[in-house]
Amino acid sequence: MIIKMDTGASAMEIDDVVAKVHALELEAQINRGAARVVIGVFGANTGEIDSEIFEAFGGVESAVRIQKPFKLASRDFKPDNTTVKVGDVEIGGNKLVMMAGPCAVESDPEVTMACARLAKKCGAQLLRGGASKPRTSPFAFQGLGEDGLKILAEARKETGLLVVTEVVDKEDVDLVAKYADLMQVGARNMQNYRLLDAVGRCGKPVLLKRGLAATVEEWLMAADYVLRCNGHPNVILCNRGIRTFDGATRFTFDPGVIPVLRHLTHLPIITDPSHAAGKWQFVPDYAKMAVAGGTDGLIIEIHPDPKKALCDGAQSLTFSDFARLTGELQIIASAVGRSM
Amino acid sequence: MIIKMDTGASAMEIDDVVAKVHALELEAQINRGAARVVIGVFGANTGEIDSEIFEAFGGVESAVRIQKPFKLASRDFKPDNTTVKVGDVEIGGNKLVMMAGPCAVESDPEVTMACARLAKKCGAQLLRGGASKPRTSPFAFQGLGEDGLKILAEARKETGLLVVTEVVDKEDVDLVAKYADLMQVGARNMQNYRLLDAVGRCGKPVLLKRGLAATVEEWLMAADYVLRCNGHPNVILCNRGIRTFDGATRFTFDPGVIPVLRHLTHLPIITDPSHAAGKWQFVPDYAKMAVAGGTDGLIIEIHPDPKKALCDGAQSLTFSDFARLTGELQIIASAVGRSM
Amino acid sequence: MIIKMDTGASAMEIDDVVAKVHALELEAQINRGAARVVIGVFGANTGEIDSEIFEAFGGVESAVRIQKPFKLASRDFKPDNTTVKVGDVEIGGNKLVMMAGPCAVESDPEVTMACARLAKKCGAQLLRGGASKPRTSPFAFQGLGEDGLKILAEARKETGLLVVTEVVDKEDVDLVAKYADLMQVGARNMQNYRLLDAVGRCGKPVLLKRGLAATVEEWLMAADYVLRCNGHPNVILCNRGIRTFDGATRFTFDPGVIPVLRHLTHLPIITDPSHAAGKWQFVPDYAKMAVAGGTDGLIIEIHPDPKKALCDGAQSLTFSDFARLTGELQIIASAVGRSM
Amino acid sequence: MIIKMDTGASAMEIDDVVAKVHALELEAQINRGAARVVIGVFGANTGEIDSEIFEAFGGVESAVRIQKPFKLASRDFKPDNTTVKVGDVEIGGNKLVMMAGPCAVESDPEVTMACARLAKKCGAQLLRGGASKPRTSPFAFQGLGEDGLKILAEARKETGLLVVTEVVDKEDVDLVAKYADLMQVGARNMQNYRLLDAVGRCGKPVLLKRGLAATVEEWLMAADYVLRCNGHPNVILCNRGIRTFDGATRFTFDPGVIPVLRHLTHLPIITDPSHAAGKWQFVPDYAKMAVAGGTDGLIIEIHPDPKKALCDGAQSLTFSDFARLTGELQIIASAVGRSM
Repeated sequence: MIIKMDTGASAMEIDDVVAKVHALELEAQINRGAARVVIGVFGANTGEIDSEIFEAFGGVESAVRIQKPFKLASRDFKPDNTTVKVGDVEIGGNKLVMMAGPCAVESDPEVTMACARLAKKCGAQLLRGGASKPRTSPFAFQGLGEDGLKILAEARKETGLLVVTEVVDKEDVDLVAKYADLMQVGARNMQNYRLLDAVGRCGKPVLLKRGLAATVEEWLMAADYVLRCNGHPNVILCNRGIRTFDGATRFTFDPGVIPVLRHLTHLPIITDPSHAAGKWQFVPDYAKMAVAGGTDGLIIEIHPDPKKALCDGAQSLTFSDFARLTGELQIIASAVGRSM
Repeated sequence: MIIKMDTGASAMEIDDVVAKVHALELEAQINRGAARVVIGVFGANTGEIDSEIFEAFGGVESAVRIQKPFKLASRDFKPDNTTVKVGDVEIGGNKLVMMAGPCAVESDPEVTMACARLAKKCGAQLLRGGASKPRTSPFAFQGLGEDGLKILAEARKETGLLVVTEVVDKEDVDLVAKYADLMQVGARNMQNYRLLDAVGRCGKPVLLKRGLAATVEEWLMAADYVLRCNGHPNVILCNRGIRTFDGATRFTFDPGVIPVLRHLTHLPIITDPSHAAGKWQFVPDYAKMAVAGGTDGLIIEIHPDPKKALCDGAQSLTFSDFARLTGELQIIASAVGRSM
Repeated sequence: MIIKMDTGASAMEIDDVVAKVHALELEAQINRGAARVVIGVFGANTGEIDSEIFEAFGGVESAVRIQKPFKLASRDFKPDNTTVKVGDVEIGGNKLVMMAGPCAVESDPEVTMACARLAKKCGAQLLRGGASKPRTSPFAFQGLGEDGLKILAEARKETGLLVVTEVVDKEDVDLVAKYADLMQVGARNMQNYRLLDAVGRCGKPVLLKRGLAATVEEWLMAADYVLRCNGHPNVILCNRGIRTFDGATRFTFDPGVIPVLRHLTHLPIITDPSHAAGKWQFVPDYAKMAVAGGTDGLIIEIHPDPKKALCDGAQSLTFSDFARLTGELQIIASAVGRSM
Repeated sequence: MIIKMDTGASAMEIDDVVAKVHALELEAQINRGAARVVIGVFGANTGEIDSEIFEAFGGVESAVRIQKPFKLASRDFKPDNTTVKVGDVEIGGNKLVMMAGPCAVESDPEVTMACARLAKKCGAQLLRGGASKPRTSPFAFQGLGEDGLKILAEARKETGLLVVTEVVDKEDVDLVAKYADLMQVGARNMQNYRLLDAVGRCGKPVLLKRGLAATVEEWLMAADYVLRCNGHPNVILCNRGIRTFDGATRFTFDPGVIPVLRHLTHLPIITDPSHAAGKWQFVPDYAKMAVAGGTDGLIIEIHPDPKKALCDGAQSLTFSDFARLTGELQIIASAVGRSM
């Protein structure tokens, strides 16, 4: 349920409403917009609560149910776009954000360092790189763990790039949060609810990838798990392709979801063209599409020597291809009124 | 099998090879490129023919099997991009093509005329409009038939726009060819092989929509049906969304297929954002993505009063939205080095 | 709209209602059930007709709108199961029906004859075999045409088996109807509406395969096309697998649709395990599942020497495997209260 | 790599081979079959190991690479069917296993007790029930946790049924293992690798559900994670429907995967018809299909009063429907040569 307060509602009136929500054993989340305060009321049994209970309170303009299955992520709860701050970088504003780096942090730190230097030079703001790799086979390379995180931190120190890296389990959240500026939850973990709770509570912003067969509603309900725990809306959605009958690419690129999300949610959207394509040849066009379609940023895999990459080399751009692409993207960004 | 002739092969040498192909009860298609002639050899039993038979002929550089299941549509057969002429409009060149109009031609000719005038004013080259509508239910409006084709011809006469319209059955090919400049084969008919044969033989260029669950290979094999019959490559592919688990839009928009096609085939590609989206709100962003991703043109549904449209009103742009979009698309087109 | 007549309504009262329907420029279809007559009213504009118009007529018990998008195929229109007579074979009754034969009728008639003899010996009632093969590639074997139909007719003459074979285009309907007892519309043609109209009008019963990405609603609307034209409900549905992300089999077997159809429609259901599996190894288990799940019959590909089959040999059962399977199926059939 | 030892290889020869495997920093798993010992060699770099190294050892018959991406789960590693013991119940043998119970353990213990009594009476061997429910929305009922596990243990004490329940996170493994006889890993967690590792190590047998868009290969690689950690093959696969375009049921029932799995893996297979159907009406037919198609058992949701169920009531069978179904299944089981 959404309780819209009057534009001039007092702090005490707001407190009274929140107290009533708690008395009903429900949760309250407060969205302080420019014009007014909106209070979201959540819980398993909100369906049984009569909205008139709240409409009788002072300072309440209206109390209405949210029809959609996602709540905190919905525009009904927060009509204005959210911008998420990662360090001093703002995601979801006019300026597009670029994240780039190797698929996995490899044992040779120079691979990551070289990626970071190139990414910095090309105008990226974040360095990506997997220290824990969730691999389909137990016998494949699983990542360097904390050693990988240290390499990322080292690269941040040298280049000033912020670090985005994946956290694969609840028990790793504290460790990853020590090194990462942006906590990535991968596609396979989009419905790992314990992990969502834990990253929500860690205080760092979260990059939530779309599950490979997740509907938009399921994805936004997963965002609700994080939003419910961190109390302020610092979740960034990341589309990365879905699984369909079409085997021409690794996954089926899904930029069509960008305007759909923009319509339904206030959260920023980042696009991963690399995992969708699975082949570096298609990555530049996929990146361009996403920018033209309104994404707030990109996360792209690069590697100094893709053929030698320990993981996903086929979808990694070489340094020269990435440099060329960033130049081309700036032109498209400005064509849709954004900067990069 | 692909027989590459020497760059200086004589007409007689070419004829000799073709005669040998026919003697083997196979089909030959000749692709006269800038540098050299390539002869495609096709038939059910090409797998049993030894390539050395042809390599012994004068003027033959090499004879190799095409590994891909599609042949005439493949870049192996024709490495250079094809441009298709529809009237005096070239599709597949640097200049993007815009096709616009109502979903169905309605009994009030003024609806179609108004669309045509607006489309012309906004720089479109073709008018779209369905005279025969393949509808899922037998009890829904099925189109005006020849009366609808006449309205389209009337609009062409007034505005100079060329006409693209769907042909739904082999028996209609002659009738539709009388009025249309570009023959559209719809998604439901992508594997209606008799229809493909017939439109291939009619001489007019063909717009071949992707079946809603067709793989890229099946689509290009469908193009092979048309190409085999018309002898010169005047097929234009049209992506229009695929069917997946994701119900957020009518179909799942599939612009990721554009660079994949560019890699595999020499044929031009047109994008239909309207059927994919199913909702007018998403059409502009979908159109922008397609242009950024390298499409050769767009086909968009417009209507003077979408709420009163007999068919697919929800996905039709109003005139003002369409006019605004065409302006925005020009900027993106030039950002990717194309004109519009 | 469904008009239920009183149990004792007179012929004249029924005629009056039908006359009124026609006066409104709508179509009427009459379902004469055991207890009462039901009149279906169909047309593009039934939504604008007030049901009270009919309720005022003598002998009318009620007039209500059909909410589902399919009408004639729905249980709302005809609550009792339909049995379709093919020759003297009843499909949809207690006794399961077996159809078997080669994928394609091959130029050597003995292949088809041998299949027919075995099928007969194993208790099958119908011989299947494709005379026109809709092939994905234009360069693959396309079938023998009328020569193939003659071979099927010859096999019928010798064995007494009835013939089911595919008709791929409207222009072939008369020819195929001359030879076939049951007209098959293939998956690729499920939404070839001209073909549906034509087979509906030809008077022969129709086996309507599910399109490979067709929803249940679309399938039943396709049945409506046929039902609308033939005036009596002689359509048999055939599930044959759908296209999904799962590439372990040629298509994803869909027997789960059997009870769903049973719930929604009165039409009989036949199952094709061969095309779903794509590999003969899985065909027997798929056939057993379908029988246990309530199918009314099976259509199975067999071949005397599958490795030499011109078409789909990988999914054809050998004679000994088929003979064993028919024995096993009888036991399962009786376990679910059916005979075979 | 698979090292087949001679039928008469000595323990010392086996030890020598294993020592060599470890010296190469690889993992060895030993499969002691009736006729011979097979040693599986696993690790990220097995591709670089020359098989001749092992063929030079005494007692080694052959050393060959496993081509499939899954290893321990494959029939290449273990050709004979595996039977998994849960308490004194054998899963994967001739006798089919029935698991039944409520979707979620509810706060009223009597719901679970009543289900357990009925399940026992109908011949079930295991009681199912969720104590931790992974729910799509954070605001839905999430399960009772340990209180729920205690209720399940209580029901076991009274009825003698064994308990299968889901573990949703690595941190819960010890707690759940204290109460459960069979540890369920849900569809959403099929690729939660930390959880797979942990349940593999806990020593209890594991029921591994198919992810809703998981390919067969991915599923068997997930089984590899568990198998690698527990050292003996006590994993049971559970098919439960997949996500496709078809919205007629909650998921698309996937019994076609049963013979595919039988072909590829030695692990037993259990079928969940309830989650696939999403509607109780279809559950009995789905259960029958699975038995006819070769499943080793079923897991079915039941509830004394489905309309009041806290979770998934629409797909729960009433007691009378379940009792009738178990009777019908016995007949089908014996039709395919199994007991129940």
